[in-house]
This record gives sequence, C-alpha cells and structure tokens, in this order.
Amino acid sequence: MKTKGNLIVISGPSGSGKGTVCQGLFRELDNLHLSISATTRNPRGEERHGVDYYFLTREQFKSMIAGDQLLEWANVYGNYYGTPQQPVIDAVNRGLDVILEIDVQGALNVKSKYPHCVLIFLIPPSRAELEMRLTNRGTDSAGEIEHRLQWAEKEIKEVHKYDYLVINDDLVAATKRVCAIITAERCRPRVFDIDSLLQKY
Amino acid sequence: MKTKGNLIVISGPSGSGKGTVCQGLFRELDNLHLSISATTRNPRGEERHGVDYYFLTREQFKSMIAGDQLLEWANVYGNYYGTPQQPVIDAVNRGLDVILEIDVQGALNVKSKYPHCVLIFLIPPSRAELEMRLTNRGTDSAGEIEHRLQWAEKEIKEVHKYDYLVINDDLVAATKRVCAIITAERCRPRVFDIDSLLQKY
Repeated sequence: MKTKGNLIVISGPSGSGKGTVCQGLFRELDNLHLSISATTRNPRGEERHGVDYYFLTREQFKSMIAGDQLLEWANVYGNYYGTPQQPVIDAVNRGLDVILEIDVQGALNVKSKYPHCVLIFLIPPSRAELEMRLTNRGTDSAGEIEHRLQWAEKEIKEVHKYDYLVINDDLVAATKRVCAIITAERCRPRVFDIDSLLQKY
Repeated sequence: MKTKGNLIVISGPSGSGKGTVCQGLFRELDNLHLSISATTRNPRGEERHGVDYYFLTREQFKSMIAGDQLLEWANVYGNYYGTPQQPVIDAVNRGLDVILEIDVQGALNVKSKYPHCVLIFLIPPSRAELEMRLTNRGTDSAGEIEHRLQWAEKEIKEVHKYDYLVINDDLVAATKRVCAIITAERCRPRVFDIDSLLQKY
C-alpha cells in the first residue's frame, strides 16, 4: 500500500559520526539507497568514481547546473559539490528511502525544493567532545580542527530549521534513533496510497 | 538536555489492536505515562476507578467541563467521556511522554488545543480483517459489530489529518512502528533545550 520513498537528509559537522551512523542504517534497515555526490575535486587515497563520489570535470559539473540536474550544489573553496537529481528521483519512485549526507546549506536548499524531505541533524553533545573526536581521528591539522569547530558552531545555529536533532552521545543509541526516525517517516499518511486504503473500508 | 515530554494520541477502531499495542509500548519504552479517561458510565466487570477509568458522577464531570479541566470530552449516547488535563500536563512537565487512547473527534480536539501533539492512527489493513477480529473476539453482537465497522469507515476518512498511519497487519511489527514514532518524536528540536546546546558550542 506504500508508494514512494522518502528523502532523508543527514547533516552534521565533520567528526559527528555521520558516516558511521549511515553505515549502521544500511545494516539495520531495508529499502535504503545512498545518494552519491558529484564533485570536481580530485579523488583522494582509495576514493573511487561512482562509489565515493562521481568525479566530474568542471565542464561536466557546469553543464549539470545549467541543465537543472542537481538537487543542490555549492562551490567550496573553488571545488564544486552537488547531488545529482535523477538517481534520487528514480530511487524514491521505486519506493526506496534515499539517504543524503550533505551540509546544512545543501540540506536547506533540498528542503526548499522538496518540503517533505526529512532533515536530521547529528551532533556530538558539546564542542569539547567534537574536538576530542577530531583530535583522536588524527587526520586533520590543528588549524583544520579549529576551522571545523568554527564551522560546526556556525551550522548548529540552524538546527531549529531541521526536523530532527540527534545528539550522538553514544554511537549505538544515535544509530537507533536515526533508524527510528526513518521508520516513523515511513508511517506518514502521505507515503501511503490512502484512496486504495479507503476502498478497503 | 531534553526538557518536556510529548503528547502521543493513539486512535483506531475497536478491534484495531490499540490496547495490545499500547501494552507493548510500555514493555519496550521508558518514560511513558498512560492517560486515564474520566467517564460517567457505570464500571463493567473488573473495571476499577483510577485504573481503567475515573468513574465520576454527572455533576462531577460537568463541574470539570465548567472549570476547563478536560483536554477533550464528548457525550456518547448519554454518557460523558473525557481526558482530565492536569495529570497530562504534570507528566509532560516531568519529561514523560503521555499516551492517550482516544477517538478521532477527541484526537482532533486535542490537536487544535496542542498543535505539537502527535496523532497516530492504527488500523487493520481492511474492513474484512477488522470484521474478522471483532468476530473472533466474541464480545460483540452482530449488530454491534456492524455498528463498529460503520464507525471505522467514518473515522478512517480523517486519516489525512493524522501525523502517522500504522497499518496493523502484524502486531509485533505495528508495535515496533509505534515505538519508532515515539522515539523519533523525542528527537524533535522543540523538545530539546536548544539554548543550552548552543552554549556548549
């Protein structure tokens, strides 16, 4: 009786545990589809085209912008990042919930285009906790960590525009909460074929 | 960081499995409070005052109406039914989610008073399935069953006014979905003390 999938947008600062939570979702729930972003930046390390990102030339990316083929996009320090629209629409039409891991500006842009999309903000309980995670990760310089913390401080001010806020105080609990949100959103009257239900009464 | 509880309203026709699902919620989740309705009808069988209902005189009930002490109320075939407001407010202020099992008219009245309350509609997948459950239950006459089916047909037309629709095709799955909805609603930005979170960043 269910017809379409939902658009689930997960945002949160670098170090919030977003990636790990998303991996957990795919272990716990069926009927999910992970959206792959497009970018003009160069691949790093083991990153693969079509798996981690669609790595595009600037010309390819600009032609997607011109053709309105991106759900959202941004230019970050000279590199373009964006979400190709067609794979998202195809998956939603097949009844899959699409998971988008994007930043706050992108999330709010998706919301303005698709008001029914579901915005989830994932964040550690405090700046001190976020700093500790970034430090323990050991991939960023002190300057980069400071920059990420300032960015988090800026992004969290938009949390009231989100549908849900998940405090990542514990990875297992946070993953369960995000699973619950996705399960709950599958129970929205709008995702059902209500006419067909009414006919059965 | 969480401050207030939510008002969770569960509606559904007699025979929808509402009572069994509610029992399941209390096994699965903490921090719940079941609202007890007041009524002027006589106790049946084993029903106890303060457990199944608050059994009141008509004078007591009318004085609660006059004093605006009911969250919602209705007169059904000469008997009054209603939800005492103060215990609900007290529980919500203590951070508990309050579960109200009430009919569609009552649910919509609560929504107009408390727009943030969460309306869940629980229903078997079809009229035939509902009829089978009512028949197997063996507590109602054929006439009563027909009356309940007609009532269900009328109530289900309001489902689009609900926040969530849970099809009770399987009791365990339906209970899990309602648990997920309650867990998700605990992640709404409005239930957090956002100022205190921002101060931690």
